[in-house]
Amino acid sequence: MHSTPASRRVTISEIAREAGVSLPTVSRVVNKRGDVAPDTRERVEELLRRHGYRARSSSSTRLARLIDLVFNDLDSPWAVEIIRGVEDVTHAANVGTVVSAIHRRTASARQWLDNLKARASDGVILVTSQLTPAMQSQLRRLNVPLVVVDPVGRPAPDVPTIGATNWSGGLSAAEHLISLGHRRIGFIGGPAAMQCSRARLDGYRAALEAAGLQVDEDLIDTGDFYHVSGYAAAMKLLDLRDRPTAIFAASDQMAFGAYEAARARGLRIPGDLSIVGFDDLPGARWASPPLTTVRQPLAEMGTLAARTVLGLANGEQAVGALELATELVVRSSTAPLSATPGQGPQRRRRAAAKARS
Amino acid sequence: MHSTPASRRVTISEIAREAGVSLPTVSRVVNKRGDVAPDTRERVEELLRRHGYRARSSSSTRLARLIDLVFNDLDSPWAVEIIRGVEDVTHAANVGTVVSAIHRRTASARQWLDNLKARASDGVILVTSQLTPAMQSQLRRLNVPLVVVDPVGRPAPDVPTIGATNWSGGLSAAEHLISLGHRRIGFIGGPAAMQCSRARLDGYRAALEAAGLQVDEDLIDTGDFYHVSGYAAAMKLLDLRDRPTAIFAASDQMAFGAYEAARARGLRIPGDLSIVGFDDLPGARWASPPLTTVRQPLAEMGTLAARTVLGLANGEQAVGALELATELVVRSSTAPLSATPGQGPQRRRRAAAKARS
Repeated sequence: MHSTPASRRVTISEIAREAGVSLPTVSRVVNKRGDVAPDTRERVEELLRRHGYRARSSSSTRLARLIDLVFNDLDSPWAVEIIRGVEDVTHAANVGTVVSAIHRRTASARQWLDNLKARASDGVILVTSQLTPAMQSQLRRLNVPLVVVDPVGRPAPDVPTIGATNWSGGLSAAEHLISLGHRRIGFIGGPAAMQCSRARLDGYRAALEAAGLQVDEDLIDTGDFYHVSGYAAAMKLLDLRDRPTAIFAASDQMAFGAYEAARARGLRIPGDLSIVGFDDLPGARWASPPLTTVRQPLAEMGTLAARTVLGLANGEQAVGALELATELVVRSSTAPLSATPGQGPQRRRRAAAKARS
Repeated sequence: MHSTPASRRVTISEIAREAGVSLPTVSRVVNKRGDVAPDTRERVEELLRRHGYRARSSSSTRLARLIDLVFNDLDSPWAVEIIRGVEDVTHAANVGTVVSAIHRRTASARQWLDNLKARASDGVILVTSQLTPAMQSQLRRLNVPLVVVDPVGRPAPDVPTIGATNWSGGLSAAEHLISLGHRRIGFIGGPAAMQCSRARLDGYRAALEAAGLQVDEDLIDTGDFYHVSGYAAAMKLLDLRDRPTAIFAASDQMAFGAYEAARARGLRIPGDLSIVGFDDLPGARWASPPLTTVRQPLAEMGTLAARTVLGLANGEQAVGALELATELVVRSSTAPLSATPGQGPQRRRRAAAKARS
């Protein structure tokens, strides 16, 4: 009923390394396909025999029928979107999804890995998670396929990664604000270690430069994707002598933090301040005002990650790195600069009083 | 490494029924404790022998080290709060949490149950989920402990349930609005089949009646806890000839739907319309304006459910039904009636124009 523990299996990536050939080549030998030079085939087959390699079969009796989905933390509506996408695939495939959080702590990640060893798993999807290189090679020795969603840093080259077109998303958000006439556009980024954060920032910079605007480093701040950090960064930006007339926050939650900062400073959205988010969580459509944001297909990213990891578990090859398209969704939190007095409600109130008298 | 399938085990609740004694009594006999009359002990021991009862042991080798957490749908920030609470406990206990959605479809629930049978589970937490009685008795035959969070309908009497004090929460929300001077208070409830929906409505009714206010059935509408349904119900309420000056929505997401309805009708929150939600999701604090809501301790409900199901897996007894305290969190979406003109912004604008001239 359960698969035999896979802990002593050699992986095809180890065979590939030892044979000095590519992964697809080993895979072709394993799957008895053509397109392999005879002497290469012989060398690989010899290594496979010597290491007692057994191919993963697609027969359900050989698999644990469980995959692992690992987050840093389970504290954002973001996570449930990914889980939904993964579960759609695993449910249909009769595979269970074990959801864990490793809380960004090495001890916690080690405990998770021990748990994994004790019960077998057909594959692991790491979401924005940090496994030490030592843990990654432990996973490799267990012959458990690994897929990374939104990598932190650069995973090993043979680990498939799934993300969104973060650079294009950052570009389109900033281009939208520029097209509305904004010139002083604040940016609140995510954790610097994350590739997606860097890509969004670079897209923002690229849009400004393409429009011939100087990038003012005072307008760039960093948060951690959560509300509070967006609030704090937006307060700093709004207290600048020459404050931005628009803010692009690299997550919806930071954008809502910026909403609160605008309220605290008596600024109306979008009349006094335009705000763009990133994610398009379900709440974005229902915010006051509805949030203009860059949609990431989070559920689809989960779906693709699950298909990839199940494919690997069945001995298929995976494409190295995939990015799903982001899309700017324009709602009511952005407006042309001409409609903004730029100096907050005091000046507008004064102007209104003058018009009345 | 894996537990043996438990499919032929008799449960202590079956023994208790056959012996005509309580569950705790059977448990005391199984655990060789005192406080059992000698002839009762003998009768129970005879039944245990006859059915070949084997107590679940706390030894890790006997357990699958997996529990199942089952939702209707994975499409609400609500779900991630529950998952976080469950995962905190299971992570510490070195147990994996298999998260599934059954999509309110019998076929899907049956598939989930087949998957469960194929891989063993130490316990199941059903969250607001509908398992048919036939499926519930299948679970029972598998000897897999079951805990229900926010039951739909009335589960079998020996199934522990975990919820929040929904009635008190509904009461405190309505009392808060009454204390602000509101008399016409709309109510947007959740699905009628759910106990928590009914309890929140009854709390609302109780508060109105205690204040000597007649319950106007025109002011009571029903949604499904999601944004769109709250928007639709609020639009109906706001289009009444004598519209409510306050709305109590039985979920935060429906409250945000009501925010959108207020915007669509040109009503300011809380100046023209007070709104109270239910849940206190992370987004409530960051809404515009921050939402007054009834806090349910969702993560704690998950924590308690996980502790209960792991306790049952280890042969402990569970208390039948537990409700964790809700708490009214007053933010900025509610205001005294005296500040509201009650007829929307037209009248106020006219009044303002008069004052100016």
